Amino acid sequence: MTFLSAPVNGCMISWNTVVMQPENNTHAQTYEAQLRVRYAETDQMGVVYHSNYIVWFEVGRVEMLRQLGFTYRDMEQQDDTHIAVADVHCRFKSPARYDDLITIRTRLINVRESLLHFGYEVVRAADGKALAEGESIHIVVNSEFKRMHLPRKYLAPFLEAAGKG
Amino acid sequence: MTFLSAPVNGCMISWNTVVMQPENNTHAQTYEAQLRVRYAETDQMGVVYHSNYIVWFEVGRVEMLRQLGFTYRDMEQQDDTHIAVADVHCRFKSPARYDDLITIRTRLINVRESLLHFGYEVVRAADGKALAEGESIHIVVNSEFKRMHLPRKYLAPFLEAAGKG
Amino acid sequence: MTFLSAPVNGCMISWNTVVMQPENNTHAQTYEAQLRVRYAETDQMGVVYHSNYIVWFEVGRVEMLRQLGFTYRDMEQQDDTHIAVADVHCRFKSPARYDDLITIRTRLINVRESLLHFGYEVVRAADGKALAEGESIHIVVNSEFKRMHLPRKYLAPFLEAAGKG
Amino acid sequence: MTFLSAPVNGCMISWNTVVMQPENNTHAQTYEAQLRVRYAETDQMGVVYHSNYIVWFEVGRVEMLRQLGFTYRDMEQQDDTHIAVADVHCRFKSPARYDDLITIRTRLINVRESLLHFGYEVVRAADGKALAEGESIHIVVNSEFKRMHLPRKYLAPFLEAAGKG
Repeated sequence: MTFLSAPVNGCMISWNTVVMQPENNTHAQTYEAQLRVRYAETDQMGVVYHSNYIVWFEVGRVEMLRQLGFTYRDMEQQDDTHIAVADVHCRFKSPARYDDLITIRTRLINVRESLLHFGYEVVRAADGKALAEGESIHIVVNSEFKRMHLPRKYLAPFLEAAGKG
Repeated sequence: MTFLSAPVNGCMISWNTVVMQPENNTHAQTYEAQLRVRYAETDQMGVVYHSNYIVWFEVGRVEMLRQLGFTYRDMEQQDDTHIAVADVHCRFKSPARYDDLITIRTRLINVRESLLHFGYEVVRAADGKALAEGESIHIVVNSEFKRMHLPRKYLAPFLEAAGKG
Repeated sequence: MTFLSAPVNGCMISWNTVVMQPENNTHAQTYEAQLRVRYAETDQMGVVYHSNYIVWFEVGRVEMLRQLGFTYRDMEQQDDTHIAVADVHCRFKSPARYDDLITIRTRLINVRESLLHFGYEVVRAADGKALAEGESIHIVVNSEFKRMHLPRKYLAPFLEAAGKG
Repeated sequence: MTFLSAPVNGCMISWNTVVMQPENNTHAQTYEAQLRVRYAETDQMGVVYHSNYIVWFEVGRVEMLRQLGFTYRDMEQQDDTHIAVADVHCRFKSPARYDDLITIRTRLINVRESLLHFGYEVVRAADGKALAEGESIHIVVNSEFKRMHLPRKYLAPFLEAAGKG
């Protein structure tokens, strides 16, 4: 069970009545990360197994933070600030294949005191072909999973990245 | 980056104007599978890394098929019928932990000639606590990723499972 | 890069002059665990990707402990006793395939105050075909990775399992 | 169950009477690859889960091939030449941690018509600290897992890499 190359027509999902439209935030910066598909990430359909895109989203987030001037490692270690995943969604468009060089484009759609909302585009670097796209919502928690506010030093660059600076 | 124990309030995502409401299909049967959390599935937050739930969804689907009287292996090998993932969504409610016995409740929300829409609930077996829930949409393809119709012998039990038999 | 079905002739590895021969401990009990191969564990050669056997070894260890009357979770949580991997070796004989039911036979080759040496056989449950075999050596440490002695309540059943009781 | 920071004393494993000593091939070239530890690769001990090193070995092999002037993807696709894993061994010295930049040093210890024997050193890039080392033995097979000889165009650079050119 891998994923399709054909689009899904007329069939999508609405989870809630309160809606946040990703397309609206045109001020969000885009941050890029790259990786190469590992053999371990393929499956017997001959393409990348779909859960790996969720791991790649994380690579995108982490590299975005580094480009913002800090690391997620430091957030956790120095400030006990953890970005727990509350919701993840991925739409698959075309299969990534072994040894493909992959570009992950990450943007911060929204940020609030204790919430982060990221968007992702996964493309094949060689020709820019769109492979997948998705979003994830995160809650800021301490190591005990208690919700907390983002420390000021992180909130500021996040607001900047979201185009709300 | 693992996931939250607190609910997300007033912030959710609508992807499309054409909406399929999972809650509506009250006729879908529920099929259960169980697994035990592996150490390899934990992360340094001390809980299960979130992409593993996507793998568990697949365990749920596969065991549902077995309970319907056939196997996904046979679908692929004997009938060149593959269920490619087009869309996956997961909402995290409470973290699963190492060695937890996990129950995955899978149901077929909808089925059409070349489309399957599954729903999942992931609960801790010991106390029934809800850990995560999600949905996935799949396109039926051959090994060349060409869209095809479900062979009749599979469509019939799938319709039955979806309460449309 | 998956693994072979043909035996390797005349080519093996000796790492050290101090030798522990697994074959010698004929008193070690064998403990069994079972699992079913997940699609996520396959690769584009159409068989199980080789690093997954190392994860399965862990499943074997963990279920052995459960059969000995305690859990690795409790060892960690209640007694801050961790079994860190120092060395792992796996020889691949025949490929496991998607949806195969797998039996892992684990035995404790040796145990000392702060060292555990496990052996594994991975077979296909349907016909008993040998798929892989291996060994792992573990050091007993606390959560700070400081070497420690196995608490008495664990050492006793481990000695029993190793046939040294 | 992660791995130790302390050395294992006087306890090692000899698998066979026919011995190939990795240390002997001082003519083998060393090829480097780098990667950054992903959160998904950590476990609840707060370090990298041990089976990931086996995946990293593969990253090392693949990048070695690229530096030799061809790709493993082409070997598979164009020449139906697959490098199946027959044996893998890893010794863990010090734990890798989240976000560490990792260097994998790969060398070809030996090559014969249908056999490849690689050696690996995994070090932390920041300070060169040795984290793990290992070896793997591979058999050359076609997509049906039938043993075959390396095509001449691959054998030549492999012999060169092994210092036997």
